[in-house]
Amino acid sequence: MKLRLILSFILLTISFTVFSQEKQNVTIVEKGLIKVSVMYPYAEGKTFNMEYYELKHMPMVARFLGSNLVKYTIEKGIASGIPNQPLPFMAIGTFYIKSLSDYQAAIAPNRDAIRADFSNYTNITPVILVSEVIK
Amino acid sequence: MKLRLILSFILLTISFTVFSQEKQNVTIVEKGLIKVSVMYPYAEGKTFNMEYYELKHMPMVARFLGSNLVKYTIEKGIASGIPNQPLPFMAIGTFYIKSLSDYQAAIAPNRDAIRADFSNYTNITPVILVSEVIK
Repeated sequence: MKLRLILSFILLTISFTVFSQEKQNVTIVEKGLIKVSVMYPYAEGKTFNMEYYELKHMPMVARFLGSNLVKYTIEKGIASGIPNQPLPFMAIGTFYIKSLSDYQAAIAPNRDAIRADFSNYTNITPVILVSEVIK
Repeated sequence: MKLRLILSFILLTISFTVFSQEKQNVTIVEKGLIKVSVMYPYAEGKTFNMEYYELKHMPMVARFLGSNLVKYTIEKGIASGIPNQPLPFMAIGTFYIKSLSDYQAAIAPNRDAIRADFSNYTNITPVILVSEVIK
């Protein structure tokens, strides 16, 4: 009787632990989503403040996008993968979204705020790619 | 007594169910990984066979990389995000890896096989970016 009580308690604890971990571990299915990549080409004299971009700019844009945004990513260019070639991009920020039209509708009224923030972290004019996640 | 037995059984079932689901739901922590992006610039007359790339080329390269490869992604370029600008890239394939030196060591002996396969799906010379995943 006592054993079963202890056993029940242990199992209950395990269940709760696993369930609470699961919340953080939900896999995001990216296939089929739209991805907007904002790519900052490298060139001599170009600068990019990654800290500002990560802590201020990207969270601001993410807020504008609301629930249409599934996730966003940031990467810092290190080198070209081809020897003796210049670094292609200093940084890339991407937004994984459900709907391109909702994205455009959310960005349009905030375009001035987004552009005005550029000078706080870079002097690069970005290239923007809209793509479909295949895998 | 019977109640506890039933309760134990239910909890045991829940635990196993949750545990077995968890296997598929493990989140891949990407922050800090190295990302190699193979980017295929768009230009007139350029072609790209996405089906071959997804089903043959990328799985072949992934096999070469072995356990150093955390995941790989494929995206298909749709448009520029800036009106009246040409599509920047027709496709991008990326490899999320733990070690750049292990990546280079795995690619080196297979470089000829990888390059020989290019003509099976594209006539584009790719741009390759090595970056660090910040977020």
